[in-house]
Amino acid sequence: MSDVKKMYQDYVAKVRKIADITNTMALLHWDKEVYMPKKGAKLRGQQLTTLAGIAHELATSKELGNILHELDERKQALTPEEACNVRVSLEGYQRQQKYSGDFVKRQTQVTADAYEKWATARDANDYNLFKGALKELVNIAREEAEILGYEDHPYDALLDKYEKGARVKALDVLFEDVRQQMVDFCAEIQARPQVEDAFLKQHYDKNKQLDYGTHILKVLSYDFDAGRLDISRHPFTIHFGSNDVRVTTRIDEQDFCNMTWSTIHEAGHALYEQGLQEQYYGLPMGQYISLGIHESQSRLWENNVGRSLTFWQSQYAHLQSVFPEHLQDVSVEDFYKGINKVIPSFIRTESDELTYHFHILIRYELEKGLIEGAIEVDDLAELWNEKYKAYMNLDVPDANRGILQDIHWSHGSIGYFPTYSLGSFYAAQFYQQAEKDIPNLTASIESGNTLPLLEWLRSNIHEHGRFYTAEELCTKITGEPLNFKYFMDYARNKFGQIYNM
Amino acid sequence: MSDVKKMYQDYVAKVRKIADITNTMALLHWDKEVYMPKKGAKLRGQQLTTLAGIAHELATSKELGNILHELDERKQALTPEEACNVRVSLEGYQRQQKYSGDFVKRQTQVTADAYEKWATARDANDYNLFKGALKELVNIAREEAEILGYEDHPYDALLDKYEKGARVKALDVLFEDVRQQMVDFCAEIQARPQVEDAFLKQHYDKNKQLDYGTHILKVLSYDFDAGRLDISRHPFTIHFGSNDVRVTTRIDEQDFCNMTWSTIHEAGHALYEQGLQEQYYGLPMGQYISLGIHESQSRLWENNVGRSLTFWQSQYAHLQSVFPEHLQDVSVEDFYKGINKVIPSFIRTESDELTYHFHILIRYELEKGLIEGAIEVDDLAELWNEKYKAYMNLDVPDANRGILQDIHWSHGSIGYFPTYSLGSFYAAQFYQQAEKDIPNLTASIESGNTLPLLEWLRSNIHEHGRFYTAEELCTKITGEPLNFKYFMDYARNKFGQIYNM
Repeated sequence: MSDVKKMYQDYVAKVRKIADITNTMALLHWDKEVYMPKKGAKLRGQQLTTLAGIAHELATSKELGNILHELDERKQALTPEEACNVRVSLEGYQRQQKYSGDFVKRQTQVTADAYEKWATARDANDYNLFKGALKELVNIAREEAEILGYEDHPYDALLDKYEKGARVKALDVLFEDVRQQMVDFCAEIQARPQVEDAFLKQHYDKNKQLDYGTHILKVLSYDFDAGRLDISRHPFTIHFGSNDVRVTTRIDEQDFCNMTWSTIHEAGHALYEQGLQEQYYGLPMGQYISLGIHESQSRLWENNVGRSLTFWQSQYAHLQSVFPEHLQDVSVEDFYKGINKVIPSFIRTESDELTYHFHILIRYELEKGLIEGAIEVDDLAELWNEKYKAYMNLDVPDANRGILQDIHWSHGSIGYFPTYSLGSFYAAQFYQQAEKDIPNLTASIESGNTLPLLEWLRSNIHEHGRFYTAEELCTKITGEPLNFKYFMDYARNKFGQIYNM
Repeated sequence: MSDVKKMYQDYVAKVRKIADITNTMALLHWDKEVYMPKKGAKLRGQQLTTLAGIAHELATSKELGNILHELDERKQALTPEEACNVRVSLEGYQRQQKYSGDFVKRQTQVTADAYEKWATARDANDYNLFKGALKELVNIAREEAEILGYEDHPYDALLDKYEKGARVKALDVLFEDVRQQMVDFCAEIQARPQVEDAFLKQHYDKNKQLDYGTHILKVLSYDFDAGRLDISRHPFTIHFGSNDVRVTTRIDEQDFCNMTWSTIHEAGHALYEQGLQEQYYGLPMGQYISLGIHESQSRLWENNVGRSLTFWQSQYAHLQSVFPEHLQDVSVEDFYKGINKVIPSFIRTESDELTYHFHILIRYELEKGLIEGAIEVDDLAELWNEKYKAYMNLDVPDANRGILQDIHWSHGSIGYFPTYSLGSFYAAQFYQQAEKDIPNLTASIESGNTLPLLEWLRSNIHEHGRFYTAEELCTKITGEPLNFKYFMDYARNKFGQIYNM
C-alpha cells in the first residue's frame, strides 16, 4: 500500500471512531425521547456531555488536522470519492478550529439560559420575558458570523452552517417569489368555497393508528430490518448508521392527519438515511448533503406523494377498511381534498402545504434583519404580528401563538428555518424531473408501487452522499439550480384543481 | 481545598468519565437485546468495540495510576468512604496492569473461537466438536491464574475475579456440605408422593402475563420512574446509574412460572441497583459488592419471598382474578406446592430451588479439577455424566442436555458458576437474620407489604456499596461468615412441610 493510501486508511479509522461515538450519542438521545424512565434524565445528560467531550477532542485533534492537510495536498493520489471525503472532513475541521474555547463556553451558556427563559416566557405567554435572552442570542450569533466569515452578508455565515452554499442573495430572490406569487394565490384560495375535512377530526383509536403508521411505512418500502417505529412527543428520524434508522411518530386521537403525515414525512427522512451507502459509514460520502436536501426527501414523500390523489387511489380502500366508521361514506376525491385543505393559521407546525411557507418567509425576513442590524429585538413582536397580517390576514392573538412558538431560536438555531422551505421547493423540482425520467411513474404509484420513485431517488440523490453540494446536485439532476417556478407550478396545478380555480 | 482533596476530586472526575462510557455501553447492550433491528448488529458491535477501547485506555492510563497510588499513600487525609473508593479502584487498576497486551489478544482470540466452536457443537449435539476449544480455554485460564497470582490454589485466582475473597479452601467445605446433606435429602423428597403442578403448564396469555409481571414489580417496590420492563430472549437486569435500572423478562405461554419467577428474580437484582447511592455514581461505594451478593438479592426475592406461602397469601386472590380459568379451582396451598415442586433435571436454568445446587456442585468439582490439572478435558463428558448419575440419579441422554448446556465456558467464564450457589446460601442466611431484626416480618409480607424487608436490605446491604467485602458484610449482618447451615435449615423446614416429611 502506498503512503497516501495508508494515511487515508488512518484518516478513515479516525473519523469512524468519532462516528461511533456520535452514533452512540444518537442512541442515548433516541432512548431519552422514547423509553428512558424520568429519573434517568440527570445522568443521561452527564453521559452525553462526556461523550460529546471525547468526540470533540478527537475531531479537533492536531493529529487529525495534520493528516487531513497532508491528504488534501496529495489528493491526486486519491479516488474522487476519497478526495471528497478528505475535502469535506477538512472543511469541517477548519470550521471547528475557528471557534475559540472562550466563545464556545459563552455560546453554550447563552443558549442554556435562553432555553430556560423561553420556557418561562411560554408558561407566562409573555414575550417580554424572552426578549433579553433573545438579544444575547442575536449578539452571539452575530459574533459567530464574524468568526466564521462571509463575503456579502453576515447571515450567509449562519445559513451556511445548515445549508452549505445558501446565500442571502439567492434566498432574497426565492422568498421574494414566495411573497409575490403566493400571497395572492392563497388569498384567492380563501375566497373559494372551502373543502370539508371534519371527517379527519374524529376519534381515531390510538392502537389502530399506530398499526396504520406501521403499514404505511411498509408501503413506502421503509426497511423494518434496518429500523423501527416508536412513539415520542415530537416525531423525529434518527440513525446510528444506514442499517439502523429509526422513526418516531405521535398520535392525536382527535386528528387522523397528525400521525399519518408526520409518519410519511419521517419515512422520507428515513429512506434517505437507509439509502446512504454502508461502505461509507462515518465518512462524508455516507452522509446527507444538507438540511434542505434532507427536507426535500421528507417533503417529497409527505406532499408530492403522500398528499396526492394518485397515491391514495391505491391506498384508500384499505384505509377505509381500517376505519370504516369514519371513512366509508367519504369518497377518495373528498378524502384527497380534505387532507389538502388550505387555511392560514398561527402555528407553523400545524399549517398546510402552502401557507407553511409564509411562516418561513417571516422568519427569514426577521432573522436577516436581526443579523444585519436592521431590526431590533425590542420591535420583533410587533413586526411579527404585522407580517402575519400582511401575508395571511391574521391577527396574532398572543405571544404563544406568535413569536414564542417553536423552540429553535431558544436553541440558538438562527439560519435554520429557511431549510424547511428549501426542502419543499427542491422536492417539487426533483419530483417534476422524476416524472420525466421514470416511465409511467403516475401509473406505478396509482397501483401502489412507489419503488421506482425510491430507486430514482436512491441513484440520483441518496447514493452520492456529500459528493455534490445541494446546488450541484440540483443542477445535475434537473439541469438548473433551485427554481421556485417548479413549486409554484405544482401548487397552481394541484390547488387550482382542488379549489376549482 | 487541600491538595489531597483536590487530587481526590480529580480521581472522581476520571473514574466518572469511565463510568459514563461503560454505562453508555450498557445502553447499547440493552438496546441490542431489546429493540435493535437485526441489520443494526454489525455497526453496534463496532461501536461497542470503540467505546470499550476508549474506556480501557482511560482505565489503564498512567495518569490515573499515579493519582491512585498517591491518594492511597495519603489515605489518612480521606474519609473512610473516600479511602474505600481509592483502595478498590487501585486494586482494579493493579489487576488490569498485570495483563500484557499479548495475553489479552490471545485470550480474546481463544474466547471468540471457543464461542463459535460451542455454537457448532450445540447444533451437532456433539461434545467432540467443542473439546479442542475447551482445552485452549482451560489452558488460557490456567495461564491467567498464574498472571493474577494466588496463595493456595490456582482456581482461587479465577474465583476472585467474580467473588472477591472466594477461596477453594472455604468452597470445598461448602460444597462438601451440599453433597453430604442435599443428595440424601433430595432423594428422600423424590421418594414422597409428588406435588401437582399441571395447572401452571397451561396456556397463559402473553399480554396478560406481561401486565402481571409489571404488577408484581410494583408490588415489590421496584421504582418504575427509575427503570422499565421489556421483553428479551434471556431475562436480565442492567443499569446506567442507580436512577435507571431496567429489567427484562421472557414469556412462555405454556408455562406461567417462566415469566413470573424470572421477573421476581430480576426485581431482586434491580432493587439492589436502585438502592445504591446516587452520590457515589461511578465509584466503588456506589457499586455492588460481588456476584454472589448480587445473586443473594435476586434469590432472596425469588425464593425466600417469591416462593413462600406467606407472600402468596397476599397476592393469590389477585392472581386468581387475573387468570380465573386457570386458577380458580386451585387453593393457595396447592399453588404454593406446585411452584415449589422438586424434581431432578438435566438443565440448570430450568431446575428447582434445591436440585439447582447439584448443577453448580458438579461445575465446581469439574472446574477445580481442570484448573489444578487433576481432570483432562478429554474425560470431562464422562465425568459430567457420572456425577449427574451420582447426585441426581439421572442418565444424561446427550451433550446438549449435558455438558454443552450453558454459554458460560464458551465465554471463558471459569470460576463464575459458584457465585450462583453462594447467592442462594447468602440469601438464606440474610433472610433468617431479617426475620430476627424486623418485627412482624412475616405478618407484614402476609399483608402484601414487603417494604420493611426492602428497607432492611437497603440499610444493611445496598447503601454500603463496596465498603465491605462479602465476608465482612455477612459477618457484620449475621454475626458469622457464610454458613451452609442456614440454607439447609430453610430447605428442610420448607420442603419438609411441602412433602410431609
